[in-house]
Amino acid sequence: ASFYCHKTTALRRMLTSDKLEFLMEAHNGLSAKIVEEAGFCGIWASGLSMSAQLGVRDHNEASWTQVLEILEFMSDASDRPILVDADTGYGNFNNARRLVRKLEDRGIAGVCMEDKTFPKTNSLLEGVKQPLADPEEFALKIKACKEAQRDPDFSVVARVEAFIAGYGLEEALKRADQYHKAGADAILMHSKRSDHSEIEAFVTNWSNQSPVVIVPTKYYKTPTEQFRKWGISTVIWANHNLRSCITAMQNVCKTIKEEESLVNVESKVAPVKEVFRLQNEDQLLKDEEKFLPN
Amino acid sequence: ASFYCHKTTALRRMLTSDKLEFLMEAHNGLSAKIVEEAGFCGIWASGLSMSAQLGVRDHNEASWTQVLEILEFMSDASDRPILVDADTGYGNFNNARRLVRKLEDRGIAGVCMEDKTFPKTNSLLEGVKQPLADPEEFALKIKACKEAQRDPDFSVVARVEAFIAGYGLEEALKRADQYHKAGADAILMHSKRSDHSEIEAFVTNWSNQSPVVIVPTKYYKTPTEQFRKWGISTVIWANHNLRSCITAMQNVCKTIKEEESLVNVESKVAPVKEVFRLQNEDQLLKDEEKFLPN
Amino acid sequence: ASFYCHKTTALRRMLTSDKLEFLMEAHNGLSAKIVEEAGFCGIWASGLSMSAQLGVRDHNEASWTQVLEILEFMSDASDRPILVDADTGYGNFNNARRLVRKLEDRGIAGVCMEDKTFPKTNSLLEGVKQPLADPEEFALKIKACKEAQRDPDFSVVARVEAFIAGYGLEEALKRADQYHKAGADAILMHSKRSDHSEIEAFVTNWSNQSPVVIVPTKYYKTPTEQFRKWGISTVIWANHNLRSCITAMQNVCKTIKEEESLVNVESKVAPVKEVFRLQNEDQLLKDEEKFLPN
Amino acid sequence: ASFYCHKTTALRRMLTSDKLEFLMEAHNGLSAKIVEEAGFCGIWASGLSMSAQLGVRDHNEASWTQVLEILEFMSDASDRPILVDADTGYGNFNNARRLVRKLEDRGIAGVCMEDKTFPKTNSLLEGVKQPLADPEEFALKIKACKEAQRDPDFSVVARVEAFIAGYGLEEALKRADQYHKAGADAILMHSKRSDHSEIEAFVTNWSNQSPVVIVPTKYYKTPTEQFRKWGISTVIWANHNLRSCITAMQNVCKTIKEEESLVNVESKVAPVKEVFRLQNEDQLLKDEEKFLPN
Ligand SMILES: [Mg+2]
Ligand SMILES: [Mg+2]
Ligand SMILES: [Mg+2]
Ligand SMILES: [Mg+2]
Repeated sequence: ASFYCHKTTALRRMLTSDKLEFLMEAHNGLSAKIVEEAGFCGIWASGLSMSAQLGVRDHNEASWTQVLEILEFMSDASDRPILVDADTGYGNFNNARRLVRKLEDRGIAGVCMEDKTFPKTNSLLEGVKQPLADPEEFALKIKACKEAQRDPDFSVVARVEAFIAGYGLEEALKRADQYHKAGADAILMHSKRSDHSEIEAFVTNWSNQSPVVIVPTKYYKTPTEQFRKWGISTVIWANHNLRSCITAMQNVCKTIKEEESLVNVESKVAPVKEVFRLQNEDQLLKDEEKFLPN
Repeated sequence: ASFYCHKTTALRRMLTSDKLEFLMEAHNGLSAKIVEEAGFCGIWASGLSMSAQLGVRDHNEASWTQVLEILEFMSDASDRPILVDADTGYGNFNNARRLVRKLEDRGIAGVCMEDKTFPKTNSLLEGVKQPLADPEEFALKIKACKEAQRDPDFSVVARVEAFIAGYGLEEALKRADQYHKAGADAILMHSKRSDHSEIEAFVTNWSNQSPVVIVPTKYYKTPTEQFRKWGISTVIWANHNLRSCITAMQNVCKTIKEEESLVNVESKVAPVKEVFRLQNEDQLLKDEEKFLPN
Repeated sequence: ASFYCHKTTALRRMLTSDKLEFLMEAHNGLSAKIVEEAGFCGIWASGLSMSAQLGVRDHNEASWTQVLEILEFMSDASDRPILVDADTGYGNFNNARRLVRKLEDRGIAGVCMEDKTFPKTNSLLEGVKQPLADPEEFALKIKACKEAQRDPDFSVVARVEAFIAGYGLEEALKRADQYHKAGADAILMHSKRSDHSEIEAFVTNWSNQSPVVIVPTKYYKTPTEQFRKWGISTVIWANHNLRSCITAMQNVCKTIKEEESLVNVESKVAPVKEVFRLQNEDQLLKDEEKFLPN
Repeated sequence: ASFYCHKTTALRRMLTSDKLEFLMEAHNGLSAKIVEEAGFCGIWASGLSMSAQLGVRDHNEASWTQVLEILEFMSDASDRPILVDADTGYGNFNNARRLVRKLEDRGIAGVCMEDKTFPKTNSLLEGVKQPLADPEEFALKIKACKEAQRDPDFSVVARVEAFIAGYGLEEALKRADQYHKAGADAILMHSKRSDHSEIEAFVTNWSNQSPVVIVPTKYYKTPTEQFRKWGISTVIWANHNLRSCITAMQNVCKTIKEEESLVNVESKVAPVKEVFRLQNEDQLLKDEEKFLPN
């Protein structure tokens, strides 16, 4: 997927443009294609969603190469640039920079790493410790990743977990500044408050020294217009495809189990030919005429 | 997943019981768990659904070890027995029997193989050739698989594609008989007609010489009571979880793209804490208290 | 490994140059690096050697993605171009062309496919059938691969198994011509005779319509000067690293088992620091000073 | 490979027997088979050797599932029990115990984990930090692994790196005691001194509270009889197959490069038919007669 494509350039432009941009979550090749067809310009490969679809926890239970394989299918299934949620980079600077090269080979446009320790803990989990990485070590990890990339347009986004871990604005700003100076192409500032107070405090003090990415999963009631006013670069809709699948599957399973019949299900789910269309069967039929003997 | 479990025994009992049993499709760890929670006794790991979620075609574009990895996550995510749709066995008898051992190691309860050639073509696709395997070669493949298994309760289901390929009842019966004699634990007779005429013709002539499995994706209007009367062993609801996900994701993507907001989405998708519940986060929290120093 | 490198160009030049060129077998990252350090300009990723090191047979027992993973490690370990022995392409034209894209993404310079059926049989095995592919189908497979590649310098070599399967010169020439016209960048003509009569007959009739690659595993007594006179493009030393490992390990195991001591072994095997050198530990030590906090 | 085998029991007996036992290094399926044929009763799957054959460093550059795949091929290739060098367990207690289950599924007999931090550093590397894990955390990791295993005979060996990290006897004994009490089935005490002073100090103070495993790569001049006198349980010959391959391949590459000929190589490397024998081709030929139509 990496040849002659300019997914990296497309993502970099999203991060640096004046417009507010949006990345929609996907967690496998199918969802990546659906995101593209819905008109989104970019894809967020969510760590939570990918681990959840596999059936494991968002604590690095899947190996980094298992995640890499999912990403390759996603990259093959869509022409839109993918920003990968790579947790902490799966180890130290050496693991993280090795990942960067593997992502480039698979046509991934950028990576986001967070300043926590390995194995990571999901930021929205309540009642758990959220141990942060030493900011100097994390800044050097960002630097190592930037030096490792071969495509100058590949993006490395530094995610600051200071608010998530219970620290205040000062720590958030200090870390954002360190990572920015280390070469991060954007700062993802995370917050799990249901209001936008932490984000507002950050953006008004940060003054757009670098592009800012946010994930309003919890403060979703804040109007998007507000994000525009603050000059936010990019909003990530972080896990809603996965969550819609859970509800849909729970419902369809319930109906079929109770009714022992598909009659009331058939019209509510995509037809089989829609599955084939998403798999691009038409193209193969044409190619078989061309490449199989009669 | 293979230790001390009796998933193989559970599936074998479903196949041989007098009751009509049901297998519900899953295509990753998440859907496997949801199928279990809905109360189904067994899981169908659909080749169409697994390829579609990866974003590739149901023509053996994913390698057999990539499919095997999905199956391992499914097996880990659910205690219910899994019958795997293994297409043609991914090659000849040697490839097929090698697969059987790998499935056993991962706690899979049984495998279904179809009498087509590699790479396979989805049976519901219109306008394509559906080349069948030589029945003698396929019967020997079934025999090789039965000899390869180490757990006596592991099941090998032989899927007959005679109707799919345009042959009549005679060919279907002849093949079912050959595969039965070769050791198949059940016969899956497939039909893509929207009525049940082919299936009825088969079951009334077959006289339950061995358990019969059916996949009423196209003839879904036939009442399940009819299947009971015929003495069908097992009905597979073959791809409805995957199809429900497509519809759900297309809808949620459309809403978020148009509204640039989560406000009208939040209540329609599973909450984040439901994702955590499905991932069994609670257990890890308890274990961290036990296995991490204070 | 695929970025900004010109491995594809390097291999293409080897195939098309006037000089006789040599490819030396490797089967993992370590052997690839040793081949490079010995001064060879290119690497042959042998299917026999790769399957043998895994401990399986050269009958497509390992999946194509398992082979792909070995190739990725090899590509990362060496700057020399790699020509991959991809057997029959692991299926039909669609499987083969999908492989081509995956190889490009991993920095592989070219692929060699042989005109047999899947799963393949090693060409040097005695007493077995060597069923050939339909030449028209195989020519179309080569064509599909050439259309699938994105890097114009990626090479597709067509391997003719006519002699291996017991056919004569006419069939060999006919097939070479078909594959050449379908776009193959070179013809690998295989022979398992211990003399060079089949190869001589082919090359004198072929008249270098396209580059010719040979594998003199069996007719190794023919002086290399003879290959030069015939205008052969490239000679593959096909499996000698793997075979040297077998002898070495059998010897070292025997000594250690009998003597229950390393005393007579230590000086005969590479020192531990040579292992570290081959792993490029020095570079990591330097990088740790740069990217880890003091 | 896990069914009905008693590799776990065989390894446990080796660890607990009165006799001095030996584990010989292997790093892929081929070397595992050669170790078995040489008469060794058990196999050491060396982390250094596996990483070196892949062409990467012994710093967890390969993912744990990539290592797992190598182990599966090794387990399939040999009936001898395999003790896996799993470094630090690839993360915290949760990663380590997850690994244990995956190893069990693949027929691995036991795992050895060392009390360092992730990503690990090879113990024999000079001039680098060897940061140790908190002993309490590591003891709890051992405990978690013991609780996770389903086969009671699966072994968890705790490797003490106190001497490697520059600590003295007291720390080594304290850690051995903690890990023993946490449930470790044996203690691997490592030393990189070229004399056996550290090991002697440990074993004379430890008094065989649990089986002791050693790795005399550096103090190889100590007669094995001395290990017997100390009541050592098991000696690991840790990396000599890999090191013998390096020397053999460097030599064969040099000869072929210089001579442009195989004439002086053919008799020094295993014949092709020996490769086929190790791959068990004979069995497949017989099976093809049985399972392929005439
Ligand atoms: Mg995440
Ligand atoms: Mg199917
Ligand atoms: Mg080959
Ligand atoms: Mg080690």
